[in-house]
Amino acid sequence: MSTILVIGAGRSSSALINYLLDQCSRNNWQLIVADMDLEMAKARIGNNAVGKAVQVDIMDINSRRELIKESDLVISLLPAFLHTKVARDCLEYSKHLVTASYVSSEMHELAEKARNKGLMFMGEMGLDPGIDHMSAMEKLDEIKADGGNVHSFKSYTGGLIAPESDDNPWHYKFTWNPRNVILAGQGTAQFLKNGRFKYIPYNRLFTRYDLVDIQGMGSYEMYPNRDSLLYRFAYNIEDIPTIIRGTLRHKGFCDAWNVFIRLGLTDDTYPIVNSEYLTYKEFVQAYLLDDSNRPLVEKVADFIGVHKHSEVMKKIEWTGLFSDEKIGISNATPAKILEHLLRGKWNLKPEDKDMIIMQHEFEYTLGDKAKKLTSTMILKGENAEDTAMSKLVGLPLAIFVTLFLKGTPFSTDSSIPVKREIYAPVLKELEEHGVIFKEKIEDM
Amino acid sequence: MSTILVIGAGRSSSALINYLLDQCSRNNWQLIVADMDLEMAKARIGNNAVGKAVQVDIMDINSRRELIKESDLVISLLPAFLHTKVARDCLEYSKHLVTASYVSSEMHELAEKARNKGLMFMGEMGLDPGIDHMSAMEKLDEIKADGGNVHSFKSYTGGLIAPESDDNPWHYKFTWNPRNVILAGQGTAQFLKNGRFKYIPYNRLFTRYDLVDIQGMGSYEMYPNRDSLLYRFAYNIEDIPTIIRGTLRHKGFCDAWNVFIRLGLTDDTYPIVNSEYLTYKEFVQAYLLDDSNRPLVEKVADFIGVHKHSEVMKKIEWTGLFSDEKIGISNATPAKILEHLLRGKWNLKPEDKDMIIMQHEFEYTLGDKAKKLTSTMILKGENAEDTAMSKLVGLPLAIFVTLFLKGTPFSTDSSIPVKREIYAPVLKELEEHGVIFKEKIEDM
Repeated sequence: MSTILVIGAGRSSSALINYLLDQCSRNNWQLIVADMDLEMAKARIGNNAVGKAVQVDIMDINSRRELIKESDLVISLLPAFLHTKVARDCLEYSKHLVTASYVSSEMHELAEKARNKGLMFMGEMGLDPGIDHMSAMEKLDEIKADGGNVHSFKSYTGGLIAPESDDNPWHYKFTWNPRNVILAGQGTAQFLKNGRFKYIPYNRLFTRYDLVDIQGMGSYEMYPNRDSLLYRFAYNIEDIPTIIRGTLRHKGFCDAWNVFIRLGLTDDTYPIVNSEYLTYKEFVQAYLLDDSNRPLVEKVADFIGVHKHSEVMKKIEWTGLFSDEKIGISNATPAKILEHLLRGKWNLKPEDKDMIIMQHEFEYTLGDKAKKLTSTMILKGENAEDTAMSKLVGLPLAIFVTLFLKGTPFSTDSSIPVKREIYAPVLKELEEHGVIFKEKIEDM
Repeated sequence: MSTILVIGAGRSSSALINYLLDQCSRNNWQLIVADMDLEMAKARIGNNAVGKAVQVDIMDINSRRELIKESDLVISLLPAFLHTKVARDCLEYSKHLVTASYVSSEMHELAEKARNKGLMFMGEMGLDPGIDHMSAMEKLDEIKADGGNVHSFKSYTGGLIAPESDDNPWHYKFTWNPRNVILAGQGTAQFLKNGRFKYIPYNRLFTRYDLVDIQGMGSYEMYPNRDSLLYRFAYNIEDIPTIIRGTLRHKGFCDAWNVFIRLGLTDDTYPIVNSEYLTYKEFVQAYLLDDSNRPLVEKVADFIGVHKHSEVMKKIEWTGLFSDEKIGISNATPAKILEHLLRGKWNLKPEDKDMIIMQHEFEYTLGDKAKKLTSTMILKGENAEDTAMSKLVGLPLAIFVTLFLKGTPFSTDSSIPVKREIYAPVLKELEEHGVIFKEKIEDM
């Protein structure tokens, strides 16, 4: 009898836990769901006899280790920077570990040690990263097997709001961790275009979006994502002249978001003095040179160089950023204040449906022919609880863990899912849950 | 007999060491100068019998501790992030410690512990920070003693090149640590203006300069410096409505430097792939959208929104940034590459004179009269070796240490030099070395 420990019962855990509860019933396994908030863990389990909800403070080494000791495999849904604590314990007590987060260099080292002990340490087993790797590698391997030579790989993912639930001028709502939305793109985007390395600093990332055409959906804005260069090695396409991974947003989003960046409101490194007593208006004013009594919307419009009645300024005004409302939270960074403001505007209503779009574009030569393969997956959620995000982050984890515990012979020589023996069975099972990529091949 | 240990024999240590060698001879003290580079330490000491040069690797805990154990007082000229290592050892072996660097919160805590052991831990005892605090506090205390009420305090410092050695279009050369020049201003500038808190993110810091008039020198550009708000408390002017500390640059500098920032070339957080094989031209191209064959100077001029023959572009072209020269250093960050480029252009020639400008402006009311006091210090160096920078960073340290070892009764209840008992004797002795503030009082 295997015991699976899930640490973290937050927003994106419901699909994962439901799948595992079902598998535990069928296979006579046990599921422990641990969270700081016991009620949240209990709610995820419900009355299911194979599940147990426990309270854990992850910073308390003893209670954390007690939990890990009594399990066979750990799934960490914690924020990425906390994974190493769990990973060290897993290594010490010889437990398998699976996460949906980017594998840091520290986690790569721990995974190396785990492999030497015959353990499975697998990261990037969610949506993005996760399904993106698996679905891209499947196509790359197919094209190679056919004798094709890929010279351009582009991959876009967006966590968006479905058109039927789209009722605000940003055409956007929070469908995952709001804090990560606020900080998205910080650092420097790196990619390759026609053999040239490209770097985009954060302060102009949201001005460097492209319009990309999504099969059946029309065009979306796409801004480059983090370090795309890394994946040349993971994907075994070291010499590819063009590789870019990007994030999709509705048209009009990037120019408006860039106003926050230009003002400085996405900075998370210092607190605003007296933030609890300030109004949002006073907060914005602190970033402007013009201290006159002109309306704030005019001053910001001038600062950005757009008309005060432009679409961009309409979006900003709609957030309440220019209002006399008090911020009301103390010692808050600009990013925290912006998150607080937008949570009041961008949270999902109970019946709202989210929508995930993922599209890969491969350009390749086959003999003397130039071809382009476009592969697109679109999935909508049911409501604010059963989101597509929760499903697509949780199912790959749940499916992989189930296959592994059932004895599927996975080798453990990679800590991200890029090997056929891993992606093939996981993608096959995902298809049965509606994760279907629609393909189109064109001659170029 | 006291033993003084100076750790670090670099660029700004010559005036400090010369002063201390002289004082050691007079007072029968000993001076140990320790550096990673033994020859550099030896060169600073010369044949002086009271001095001893030693080699030390500051990361080697044993040799570091051996040195600290045999001294009575330590002066650390190391990069600021290394001070805590030295400070912990000083605390353990009950040694006094003096630095010219900003006191971090960690160093503040260590200083607190040192005070409890009766030790002197003093930081910010150089030029800026250092002479700026002392000379400002002297005037603030005088105005208060006269019954004045200060409502605006502005303080500017610039490490510049003297007009007679100014032979390049930037009107600037490296007179202190080049790395710090490249990274200057990163973070967020914070200050108070007419009772309003102001925040300027790095990405527009160099667009928010003011022109300020320096007594007898004409106008200079001034951009706000780090966190000016902190000094409300240190200077005992908590309720002042206007406080700003800034850096001075020659006219035309800020707009041109902003080109580097906008491109992204001052970023020190990630390495450029294959940096050793790239030309500077290819390096810049990696930051641009336009991959056409147009001349690079035109593309950058368009990106910035200035004419290709503008003064700004002349400055950038002069650095060689658009050239086909190879960068030639591997695994370098953008900031490192920019530093490497500018070192070839901005290093002092042997006969070059540097120039320090410091100016404080106090606006206050005295009875029913509004007054303004302007206090200005200008000092030029002798040549590339005996710089004004070395003198003004080193002499406050040397003078303070000498006074302290001679038994001047300093209390140790502050870790920066803002108390009269400290600034008064140090400023008095500095005057004898030409550090003279010229004052002007105007009715407003």
